[in-house]
Amino acid sequence: MAKILDGINNPEDLKKLNIQEKKQLSEEIRELILGVVSRNGGHLASNLGIVELTIALHSVFNTPEDKIIWDVGHQCYVHKILTGRKDKFDTIRKFGGIAGFPKISESEYDSFNTGHSSTSISVATGMARARDILKQEHEVIAVIGDGSLTGGMALEALNDAATTKTNLKVILNDNEMSISKNVGGIPLYLSKIRTRRGYTSSNKKVKEFTNKIPIIGKPIVKIAHYTKQVIKRAVIHNMYFEDIGFTYLGPVNGHNIEDLEKIMKYSKEIKGPVLIHVVTKKGKGYEIAEKNPDKFHGVSSFNIETGEPTKQKEKDYSKAFGDSLIRLAQKDEKIVAVTAAMKDGTGLKEYANKFPDRFFDVGIAEQHAIGLIAGMAKAGLKPVFPIYSSFLQRGYDQVIHDIAIAKIPVTICIDRAGIVGNDGETHQGIFDLSFLSSIPNIVVMAPKNFEELDKMLEFAVNENKPVFIRYPRGGENYKFDHVEKIEIGKSEIIQEGKDVTIIAIGKMVGRAKEIAELLPEKSIEIINARFLKPLDEKTIIKSIEKTKNVITIEDNLLHGGLGTSVIELINKSKIENVKVKTYGYDDIFVEHGKVEELEEKYGISAQKIAKDISII
Amino acid sequence: MAKILDGINNPEDLKKLNIQEKKQLSEEIRELILGVVSRNGGHLASNLGIVELTIALHSVFNTPEDKIIWDVGHQCYVHKILTGRKDKFDTIRKFGGIAGFPKISESEYDSFNTGHSSTSISVATGMARARDILKQEHEVIAVIGDGSLTGGMALEALNDAATTKTNLKVILNDNEMSISKNVGGIPLYLSKIRTRRGYTSSNKKVKEFTNKIPIIGKPIVKIAHYTKQVIKRAVIHNMYFEDIGFTYLGPVNGHNIEDLEKIMKYSKEIKGPVLIHVVTKKGKGYEIAEKNPDKFHGVSSFNIETGEPTKQKEKDYSKAFGDSLIRLAQKDEKIVAVTAAMKDGTGLKEYANKFPDRFFDVGIAEQHAIGLIAGMAKAGLKPVFPIYSSFLQRGYDQVIHDIAIAKIPVTICIDRAGIVGNDGETHQGIFDLSFLSSIPNIVVMAPKNFEELDKMLEFAVNENKPVFIRYPRGGENYKFDHVEKIEIGKSEIIQEGKDVTIIAIGKMVGRAKEIAELLPEKSIEIINARFLKPLDEKTIIKSIEKTKNVITIEDNLLHGGLGTSVIELINKSKIENVKVKTYGYDDIFVEHGKVEELEEKYGISAQKIAKDISII
Repeated sequence: MAKILDGINNPEDLKKLNIQEKKQLSEEIRELILGVVSRNGGHLASNLGIVELTIALHSVFNTPEDKIIWDVGHQCYVHKILTGRKDKFDTIRKFGGIAGFPKISESEYDSFNTGHSSTSISVATGMARARDILKQEHEVIAVIGDGSLTGGMALEALNDAATTKTNLKVILNDNEMSISKNVGGIPLYLSKIRTRRGYTSSNKKVKEFTNKIPIIGKPIVKIAHYTKQVIKRAVIHNMYFEDIGFTYLGPVNGHNIEDLEKIMKYSKEIKGPVLIHVVTKKGKGYEIAEKNPDKFHGVSSFNIETGEPTKQKEKDYSKAFGDSLIRLAQKDEKIVAVTAAMKDGTGLKEYANKFPDRFFDVGIAEQHAIGLIAGMAKAGLKPVFPIYSSFLQRGYDQVIHDIAIAKIPVTICIDRAGIVGNDGETHQGIFDLSFLSSIPNIVVMAPKNFEELDKMLEFAVNENKPVFIRYPRGGENYKFDHVEKIEIGKSEIIQEGKDVTIIAIGKMVGRAKEIAELLPEKSIEIINARFLKPLDEKTIIKSIEKTKNVITIEDNLLHGGLGTSVIELINKSKIENVKVKTYGYDDIFVEHGKVEELEEKYGISAQKIAKDISII
Repeated sequence: MAKILDGINNPEDLKKLNIQEKKQLSEEIRELILGVVSRNGGHLASNLGIVELTIALHSVFNTPEDKIIWDVGHQCYVHKILTGRKDKFDTIRKFGGIAGFPKISESEYDSFNTGHSSTSISVATGMARARDILKQEHEVIAVIGDGSLTGGMALEALNDAATTKTNLKVILNDNEMSISKNVGGIPLYLSKIRTRRGYTSSNKKVKEFTNKIPIIGKPIVKIAHYTKQVIKRAVIHNMYFEDIGFTYLGPVNGHNIEDLEKIMKYSKEIKGPVLIHVVTKKGKGYEIAEKNPDKFHGVSSFNIETGEPTKQKEKDYSKAFGDSLIRLAQKDEKIVAVTAAMKDGTGLKEYANKFPDRFFDVGIAEQHAIGLIAGMAKAGLKPVFPIYSSFLQRGYDQVIHDIAIAKIPVTICIDRAGIVGNDGETHQGIFDLSFLSSIPNIVVMAPKNFEELDKMLEFAVNENKPVFIRYPRGGENYKFDHVEKIEIGKSEIIQEGKDVTIIAIGKMVGRAKEIAELLPEKSIEIINARFLKPLDEKTIIKSIEKTKNVITIEDNLLHGGLGTSVIELINKSKIENVKVKTYGYDDIFVEHGKVEELEEKYGISAQKIAKDISII
């Protein structure tokens, strides 16, 4: 049977469908997404949950003139399918394929790049104000989840947008989840709104509400006349959002296209900022995901029948971290763990089950998390905070201001450091060595394997200094039989040699071994730096004076990282006639693709580096 | 007459006073603060506004066992006076004297270091949770202004703290100001609470409220019996704070010590998180400051009688920026300006008066500000965002994620870059060159004088790239007669020479000239780098090949800045036998003091560098 989706090449085609056809389209889109994500991996539950909402948005608004900003952006699959990319959809997140997040460079329908949480209201407010100044007429719509709404940037933006007179729609996609179940006061508040049923039936409230906004008093009554049920829900008077200056509409069922379209059309009549509260179900339509939305937030390839992963997941650094933390927490009651809505992703699940009283999920709130652990540490605990490298960027000022200045002894474990692969530019963790190495008073280290991570973590919680440990996505890349004891600022000589010194850190120590194995004719000295800060200057200088040839390898941008520190050391030490070549990412953002594909492209594979060394 | 203050050496002494004596003490403290700040400069209005609140806090709570976290911390003067530092108070903000902000290292009464806005609720929540886990009993109190409450970190913390069961007090010091008049929905909301008089008299509401918290139902009634007026105000049922999980008390008059003490004592009876809404007046007791609280937020020395500055303020970079922006905005209607609660400080006052429709104050919300200008620029405007260097740290992720990845053409003007002086560690702007230079796709520059700033700003708004221009606090440090046209990535040779190349950026170009003048016997080539990124590699290499001796000078940390970029360039270019010495701040936080004192101490004065060069 011909599919409706076959005839949808852009939102104009969508506008020709009736509600029944749109319902069928929803199912076809779900099927497509489920098929592709079960093969490619990707974000599943959030996309299944937003099918009807996306159809309604593209039916009611005139994209690309009207601008939709997708907060975080991992829920953009339906949008991409509806805006001319359905035929490329099976390339999503693959090297050279379409991205898993909105990209300005990919389509005029992608109004802005997203990837990190909580940016959409800011960007949309900016676009709305620009539209007014440039005397244009289009709509601007931010689509944001309830999880993202706990992020400080979104809350700052709400505060500013609220008193603007500009026309702006904020669609709150409330699925009661960020990645894990949401925590905190704002989600609690939203759940109260959802359940205040008594409120919806109060005609007095409806009247008060319509009278409060004289301009639209009439249209409301008119629409209410023929679609009482939607409007009854639509005019729940919501004290807080209204008090700060938004017109609040909702809550509306996010899987009923008809209701969604009505409330959106109605919102166009309202001047100023409007918040539409839409209630959706993550994983909608795929029962296994509905029951386990966190498991199906971001997935690797899986069997659709069973929901089980196609490949057995090998032990990764997140799991290794979690295991080590449990081991340490069992013998030290002062250890506590904090996460910013990433319990599962950072390997804290088992820890949280074992130590519920020493586990704190603060929601999507990286800045707060760092202030929180600072307070905990100052008061005598030993907090450990695992966080993805690219999200630690959100807490840069807090690392300086709340941790480093007063040397507050916290342990921050930087997961997903280096190239993470298919999530692309916004998620590559290639800045942390650069931005941390210029901060005084802190210790920055990276392990070469799980055992070294374990030892580093034990070192960190007992060192009474701010310590940062970074490790990559995925598992070990080399089997080492030996890990030396950790001493502050002490590197490890992996093998001795006299022709070339390779200084590597973290997973690149394994890479250095592979390189040495490719070049049996060369006498290569390999130094596992372990500490970027403080750098083991003595050992490095001694080796350089011997070989006069240095290679540095790091899974980070070149400027400001390990290579830079080694060059600075050579300059400071006045060692002459040394040749230094640094490997890492040279002043570029790295797109999506498999880690190996990207390392090959950017010249830091073992083969590429070995080839360079062979002609030294 | 003997002063009451003479007998106050710590909070224990304070506890012995009666209300009348505390009132007199308030006046004595105001007099002391006014005297010292009129001589030293410092934060005046906020400290005059918080005298009674601080007295009440130290009367009711048992510091230092009970922990007070002062948000921002510039309002800590009264606290310092009451906690053993009144005799050193006249050294405040001076080199070697006590700091203008709380410092753990200075007193056991300073529970945490602050300086930047919106951190206190996070830190206090961390301390409260630590207390519970460590089975201790003390209180933890965050004191935060309504301005700071618009900062994302504080809002994130409210969300998390709200559903905690831990005992925590948040004192909201509501003076309707951040530094300028507050903006946005949250301040609007607070003003509605303050003025909802009808609400306070509703016995029904009071009863509902007391019934909602069964544990404290009785104490409320009991206290209400003898102090009806306080409690009536105290139990305004506040929907939002209560809905998210706080017990809300207030608003209470922040200049009535008796009421303040009662509400604080009462708050100790309540389990879980409590928010006490205190209304104060910035500048209280000094009429000139009451009338102009923004002018008296942070001041230089002034005449107490007239309120006029003792020294005529010379034109500074902020003013130069503001003038240039007006000039450009007059001929280009796409130019808009955004500030994060720093209209006056960043020189935007006159611009805002001239172009009210193209001026946006978003409140203390640096993250949002960057998302906002990103949206504006994507939609066709030319936004210019002046921000202090140390506050730009708050928007580091947004610079990467919302600006750099998609090359969004905004202009960010980094004011107070380099050493700012008396505000100390938290405010020194010495990280920006390091953290910006590793970000791909952006342009980073610094002018040597006002005229060059003007040309750089004109270049920036027309370049169609993300451009960052950094300049220092204060005025020009050298008179140059000539400023070349700005071309992307092009440096300027200030003078030619053959012995030594000095590469300097921003205000350090003037320093280089001073050095050259101290060393007439040396043939010194001076390069004004202008662009840190992209660096003018060709000109620099040519000069280095000639002199083989390079000095770099920058008002920034050494690692990752100009010096590092030059060393990397030399390494990459394989120029041999070059001597490089870099001047800047070497992996340390720089304390408070006059700029010249600090530059002398850390070895970047003209004399010090000239001496080093003289022996080359």
